Amino acid sequence: MARIAVVAGDGIGTEVTAQAQKVIEAVLPDAEFNDYDLGARFYNRTGEVLPQAIQDELARHDAILLGAIGDPSVPPGVLERGLLLKLRFDFDQYVNLRPSKLWPGTTSPLAGVKPGEIDMVVVREGVEGLYVGAGGVLHKDTPAEIATEESLNTRHGVERVIRDAFARAQRRDRRHLTMVHKTNVLTKAGGLWARTFAAVAAEFPEVTTEYQHIDAASMFMVSNPQRYDVVVTDNLFGDILTDIAAAVTGGIGMAASGSVNPERKYPSTFEPVHGSAPDIAGQGIADPAAAVLSASLLLEHLGHHDEARRVSEAVAAEVASRTTGAPLRTAEVGDRIAAAL
Amino acid sequence: MARIAVVAGDGIGTEVTAQAQKVIEAVLPDAEFNDYDLGARFYNRTGEVLPQAIQDELARHDAILLGAIGDPSVPPGVLERGLLLKLRFDFDQYVNLRPSKLWPGTTSPLAGVKPGEIDMVVVREGVEGLYVGAGGVLHKDTPAEIATEESLNTRHGVERVIRDAFARAQRRDRRHLTMVHKTNVLTKAGGLWARTFAAVAAEFPEVTTEYQHIDAASMFMVSNPQRYDVVVTDNLFGDILTDIAAAVTGGIGMAASGSVNPERKYPSTFEPVHGSAPDIAGQGIADPAAAVLSASLLLEHLGHHDEARRVSEAVAAEVASRTTGAPLRTAEVGDRIAAAL
Ligand SMILES: CC(C)[C@H](C(=O)O)[C@@H](O)C(=O)O
Ligand SMILES: CC(C)[C@H](C(=O)O)[C@@H](O)C(=O)O
Repeated sequence: MARIAVVAGDGIGTEVTAQAQKVIEAVLPDAEFNDYDLGARFYNRTGEVLPQAIQDELARHDAILLGAIGDPSVPPGVLERGLLLKLRFDFDQYVNLRPSKLWPGTTSPLAGVKPGEIDMVVVREGVEGLYVGAGGVLHKDTPAEIATEESLNTRHGVERVIRDAFARAQRRDRRHLTMVHKTNVLTKAGGLWARTFAAVAAEFPEVTTEYQHIDAASMFMVSNPQRYDVVVTDNLFGDILTDIAAAVTGGIGMAASGSVNPERKYPSTFEPVHGSAPDIAGQGIADPAAAVLSASLLLEHLGHHDEARRVSEAVAAEVASRTTGAPLRTAEVGDRIAAAL
Repeated sequence: MARIAVVAGDGIGTEVTAQAQKVIEAVLPDAEFNDYDLGARFYNRTGEVLPQAIQDELARHDAILLGAIGDPSVPPGVLERGLLLKLRFDFDQYVNLRPSKLWPGTTSPLAGVKPGEIDMVVVREGVEGLYVGAGGVLHKDTPAEIATEESLNTRHGVERVIRDAFARAQRRDRRHLTMVHKTNVLTKAGGLWARTFAAVAAEFPEVTTEYQHIDAASMFMVSNPQRYDVVVTDNLFGDILTDIAAAVTGGIGMAASGSVNPERKYPSTFEPVHGSAPDIAGQGIADPAAAVLSASLLLEHLGHHDEARRVSEAVAAEVASRTTGAPLRTAEVGDRIAAAL
């Protein structure tokens, strides 16, 4: 029986997560859900972001279903680092999974690109690189100030995420994997990534491979996103590339993500890429599609492949059936998807 | 009298640079040009990338007109670091200037975006950040390998490029400046950038400002590039962002750049963003527009404002007059632009 921690969070997070939970309940009736009140409201009330006791409780779940975190009342960075990134690091969620698909019923801002033509998944490294927080500031607020950020990369960390990406590519139709880095400038980390990529490639002779610099990949993401199948890249490049991928597939309305510990030693977190959107919160008009697609990633991760596929197909059908301009009600969308299952 | 060093380089570099020189000669008849044979051919012949004696000669010029460097025969990174980046660092070219405009006669891959609607310039820091080459590799090619990259940022370096960007924004119609970084994760360097930005903003009360994280900016670059006027950002983010900007304005065919030392203590380098394109080299079919626009940036930098404007207007007119599908001859395009001046 799956034990799922629900961190609905702030703003529209609570609204869309309710639909995601509803949909999981429809396909996994005996799943157990436990709510955790974290995010801006909790922080403003308690002054704490993630108490150790709550983190210990979260650790005893199979997965975390997260809505959205953040509110203008909280200084930027506090919740991101204290909650989202902390979970990624403490729960060793080293595979940050971000599929991007141009779904029927949605429109790309790119002229002439049709639904079905873009279908990729970016496997972003989740716990290394520039996200480790290494570095410092000296002579702050004087003309002599310097600030450093250090990107830390290990063979261990790079190899496991690259192997995960190869395995995913191997399971897909096109079996193509693109590695993205900036090896011509970041020669140390880039060298490690390139050598590791070449070594792991030997284990997957059926997967065709390609390397691109991050600047070129960012350009191709706009000029020819159809070319990508699976992409593997480091933490920061993945952060950027997945937002471009979301943009070319019609924005973050359908962008789901998972911060995954593949070994399931720790719970993985599944959340829509969009934020808490305080401007439309409380009105019941947020699109729960990305949250429900994140639930589908959660089901997949827990081994419920058939259920995962049914959920993403139901989302696709719901989105394809929408009539332009018709008002969207969050709960009704969730009901329709759940009913279709 | 302007002394211009010409580093035409490899592949189509020589072809397009000849047109850029032709155009400068048309507006600045007494300019002196000195050719320097550098790039892949030079490297393959001599084993050297940039001999000190040549660098000393380059230093005695007002500007460097560069074509394109690179050939598959040279290992990736060698010429980039040994020539392009070395010039940026040794000649303190701390302002990396990259205008992006959707010109009449060109097409954006973005649906519904019309010529004239995108008009921005990205001011990318050129000599700090992750490009300094700091970091190392330990236990190479063993399971214990680690690789680090260090981003070094100084108040001195950040302040001068931010001030340059404000000054540019101040001179433009919209007077809007967007700072892009990743302050919520890179808190040390991001903090330095954010505090410096706020401090310099006080000197430019007429410029409106905005801050965006690099991931959000990369998304907006696709969903709403019209919003940008001047953008200032660090070395690596600028590398990525300018390639997205080039992509949404129709690719690198019109993308010009300058690596600028604003004080003119050292020569600045002006070059098209495109590469040496070995696949079409030698056929006389490369579009010299980006190279000629880079020459316009060169003229602007040397204080020939009127000439710079006339050159970019002539390029715009030539591009607008093109008929779709008609074959393009590099030298004829250069002749037409020069004749129009
Ligand atoms: C909120 C922020 C820390 C986070 C990141 O940079 O990873 C977000 O942009 C994301 O992509 O999940
Ligand atoms: C060739 C490479 C080193 C260079 C960079 O990364 O700056 C290029 O991408 C550029 O943008 O000028």
